[in-house]
Amino acid sequence: MEILKERIRQEGRNLGRGILKVDSFINHQVDARLMMLIGKEMARRMGRLGATKVLTAEISGIAPAVMTAWALDVPVVYARKTKPITMPADVYRQKAPSHTKGTEVELLASPEFLRPEDRILIVDDFLATGKTINALVRLVEQSGATLVGIGAVIEKAFEGGRAGLEHLGVPIESLVIITDMSNGKIVFAE
Amino acid sequence: MEILKERIRQEGRNLGRGILKVDSFINHQVDARLMMLIGKEMARRMGRLGATKVLTAEISGIAPAVMTAWALDVPVVYARKTKPITMPADVYRQKAPSHTKGTEVELLASPEFLRPEDRILIVDDFLATGKTINALVRLVEQSGATLVGIGAVIEKAFEGGRAGLEHLGVPIESLVIITDMSNGKIVFAE
Repeated sequence: MEILKERIRQEGRNLGRGILKVDSFINHQVDARLMMLIGKEMARRMGRLGATKVLTAEISGIAPAVMTAWALDVPVVYARKTKPITMPADVYRQKAPSHTKGTEVELLASPEFLRPEDRILIVDDFLATGKTINALVRLVEQSGATLVGIGAVIEKAFEGGRAGLEHLGVPIESLVIITDMSNGKIVFAE
Repeated sequence: MEILKERIRQEGRNLGRGILKVDSFINHQVDARLMMLIGKEMARRMGRLGATKVLTAEISGIAPAVMTAWALDVPVVYARKTKPITMPADVYRQKAPSHTKGTEVELLASPEFLRPEDRILIVDDFLATGKTINALVRLVEQSGATLVGIGAVIEKAFEGGRAGLEHLGVPIESLVIITDMSNGKIVFAE
């Protein structure tokens, strides 16, 4: 997705250790117009899969997932990291690493909204180590729903997460793939 | 907003103690199509204010705020509750009550994205006691930006939050106002 690459070239900052700062347009400030284009592009690539629902994880997955869901005209569920008082006692739970706390968090989803008959498209902002997306995959498995695809806005290919998802046998689409962030570089896949 | 009232009548559940469960379409599962209508209605009511940016708080404010920002064609900033590694050391911080933990959380926003020249429209899912929105107001004040309006998807008028915001002298718009949730009722304002 050329417009996204261009934006990363202009505003993305390589903070070292594989950390890409894109919080001027993706995950603190959000460029709503770009996010709509991201949702439409995700829907264009994944529309054939017949998803009945988009699944993401709070927090920074919400914006791209909502726009993808809008473009596909299906609902979106965001897995919660803390249990709201409105959530029933028995919920699906899977552990995922926390990016901010250096520990683990749980991702929670209500059985009310992940149903065995659902066909789930997972959408997140980053595919890096794949651990968060793997936790979402396990939520789908726990619910008995069918996983139909995985979409990420930005893939950091050098962190190898894709390899841990390929056995699932579903399409994995990243709108932009970064192959190298060593020595301050940001190198995109051809 | 009649379509939203109708949805609350159909799917909203009064859990007692003023708690309204709307997590089948607002804040766990999100009806993306309805959320787009919410964003457009918010923009229709607030468009005249000349906002340059929408501000909300993670988590459940993100979906309505992103759609409002899209309809206004401005960026949206969501205040963070935990500090991501991409955020600079010096950030604006304001305390707000936590709905899930019963304690306080901090709302953080980067000075990179709240600028003195910005005209800020605050958008959140609920206006209840007004404490979260008040923390967002203080973030705006801390940044030197100008607050131009406050929008909520659902106002629980019986919790009195509006009274604590009126001194700000900006338009406060709620798409649906609930006046009474005693004894299992959900009563809308005329």
